[in-house]
Amino acid sequence: MTASEIRELLKWLTTDVISFGGGMPDPSTFPVEDIAKITAYVLETYPHAALQYSPTDGVPELRRELAKFVDTYAGIKAKPENVFITVGSQEALEIIGRLFIDPGDVVITENPTYIAALQSWRVYQPRLVGIPMDSQGMIVEKLEEAVKRLKAEGARIKYVYTIPTAQNPSGLTMSQDRRKHLLEVAERYDLLIVEDDPYSYFLFEPIQVTPLKALDRSDRVIYLSTASKIFAPGFRLGWVIANEELVSWFNLAKQALNINTTTFVQYIFMEGLRRNVVLNNLPRVRELYRKKRDAMLAALETHMPPGVSWTKPSGGMFIWATVPPHIDTRELLKVAITKYRVAFVPGHGFSVDQSLRNAMRLNFTYPTFEQIEEGIRRLSMAIKGA
Amino acid sequence: MTASEIRELLKWLTTDVISFGGGMPDPSTFPVEDIAKITAYVLETYPHAALQYSPTDGVPELRRELAKFVDTYAGIKAKPENVFITVGSQEALEIIGRLFIDPGDVVITENPTYIAALQSWRVYQPRLVGIPMDSQGMIVEKLEEAVKRLKAEGARIKYVYTIPTAQNPSGLTMSQDRRKHLLEVAERYDLLIVEDDPYSYFLFEPIQVTPLKALDRSDRVIYLSTASKIFAPGFRLGWVIANEELVSWFNLAKQALNINTTTFVQYIFMEGLRRNVVLNNLPRVRELYRKKRDAMLAALETHMPPGVSWTKPSGGMFIWATVPPHIDTRELLKVAITKYRVAFVPGHGFSVDQSLRNAMRLNFTYPTFEQIEEGIRRLSMAIKGA
Repeated sequence: MTASEIRELLKWLTTDVISFGGGMPDPSTFPVEDIAKITAYVLETYPHAALQYSPTDGVPELRRELAKFVDTYAGIKAKPENVFITVGSQEALEIIGRLFIDPGDVVITENPTYIAALQSWRVYQPRLVGIPMDSQGMIVEKLEEAVKRLKAEGARIKYVYTIPTAQNPSGLTMSQDRRKHLLEVAERYDLLIVEDDPYSYFLFEPIQVTPLKALDRSDRVIYLSTASKIFAPGFRLGWVIANEELVSWFNLAKQALNINTTTFVQYIFMEGLRRNVVLNNLPRVRELYRKKRDAMLAALETHMPPGVSWTKPSGGMFIWATVPPHIDTRELLKVAITKYRVAFVPGHGFSVDQSLRNAMRLNFTYPTFEQIEEGIRRLSMAIKGA
Repeated sequence: MTASEIRELLKWLTTDVISFGGGMPDPSTFPVEDIAKITAYVLETYPHAALQYSPTDGVPELRRELAKFVDTYAGIKAKPENVFITVGSQEALEIIGRLFIDPGDVVITENPTYIAALQSWRVYQPRLVGIPMDSQGMIVEKLEEAVKRLKAEGARIKYVYTIPTAQNPSGLTMSQDRRKHLLEVAERYDLLIVEDDPYSYFLFEPIQVTPLKALDRSDRVIYLSTASKIFAPGFRLGWVIANEELVSWFNLAKQALNINTTTFVQYIFMEGLRRNVVLNNLPRVRELYRKKRDAMLAALETHMPPGVSWTKPSGGMFIWATVPPHIDTRELLKVAITKYRVAFVPGHGFSVDQSLRNAMRLNFTYPTFEQIEEGIRRLSMAIKGA
């Protein structure tokens, strides 16, 4: 195991450092008043259930509400028995590693991909294979080439991990045609797909896409999402949509990990879904994040020296920036923090082979507009001095 | 992995089956009104902190309150930096397995011991060695013999796991002299001790004991406890007291598992500790559980046929009963549920080698007084018919 660079950054947030490091929502987006009302209602109406142990696979009423929610929201057809509740999506990633990966097994991901997924899987010693992306997301031709090569070598490919919408860290969204192509390739080579979808709630452009899971006709997609970005990250609530056999495997794994996800917050979130708190809150949050993205793009345009480029994210929470090749962003980070009082996550950890040394991930949802402008100015000074 | 027998039982609880299976508190012990008041206060006073991500090792204010609490309550001297927050004690057990056990490493436990600890560790393929108990708890002479033998074999002993107070499943409490002896042996052979302490809050007899951690002068005890039995199990909150180096290892492991324990309930429990909700609530709960224990002991005395024996627990939540050797309690359970509508946990899973086939664990905290009397009557009929 290596230290999580993202989490290490958390401790700097209390100082005068402007952090683009974490992946935290703007706390002004939390539906505090609704949560207060709902919590009082839950404790008045069914306190004994809400404060007791609960089934490992999740509170049944929440599983029912989520089966409805993923249909309404994303066109995913699921029964309550297909819904499994986790301690945030991170726990789903951990369980997937635990269930599927034996040392040497191949896991295919976009490159770059979500740093904490790679970290949790590395414990199980997979062979990680990264597929490059373009503006339409993962390049499926490259995936097919890799799969052919790996199969010829006799490698055991366990699954393909993708964040198709507003990807972390790039902000890129896989086009609908690309999604269909990905599923065709998965079918042809009998591949399992792990679809991680925390960000589709925050698409800033009129892009028409559906989750892979909604297109999945041969039951080869495991779908993950989370309440962290649309309700409250402090609840640590995620969900998996998968077939019943997989749900029973998840169940066995989770029993050993922590018996059940916090019952209390499951009931609160369930009531939140019933009262449409999430869907009603989304337009306001989406608009705020769009403005923050635009503010960061404008600041980058204004301040960055030549040789620095960045993605224009279609949604989500992050911009992926590339600096001139002579700069190692791990080294840059030390100077950026100690001298310029600004932080980001270096690119290394997002690549399967630590190769993205002159890149960085910038979060635009947590900092204020003032911090975005001032922080990008400071960062540009750090880059100019490097 | 094998299915958790305890958790499987949960699903029968909604039927007409009387369950002595789980390890659930009586819901009437939950301080619901205090929790409602505190929750409203937390959401009014610091909603943004309580609903946001939080540090992996725990909310700093809760770590401070717990450092005070373990001193006041149990005489354990700890700094906030020694306190690590987990998703219930189960997560602490999982992380201990993950950090310490390589395949073939020896883990020593009481025999019988907590079924879910064995289940979470088996994933890491330890060699489990069980030490018998008498009325004073683990027989430390037997431990020393085993350690000598194992060391002579060149085995790597990773730790000794003990629930010294009101043990699960036996209800037995290790005497103070035995505790000192255990620590002497640990010192002599340089052993690490994992002390699991969920039940010392519910001692029904005037036994004077202190946690091993309070006697630990050479920093060889990792102490675990939980809010599940003294506040609300649905919160899924546990804590570890250990040295700072171990806390940093826990931190790395937990980042991959779920990033952080539910922030919201950490703040609520922290306020509960500040307002002495736990300490004020304990006498009432202890008295209720003592009465329930006595009710189950009386029912066993009344109904059980000759050849059945049971422990008289000094505290905690469980009685351990032994039936005649020709009865396999896994087989008995099927009949007990389907024909007599009563459930328990068969002994097999509590032993390191599945050898305790004619034993069972009975929970007396969750069922009502009426269910205790009627359930034991039904169980005695099942045993007589076996």
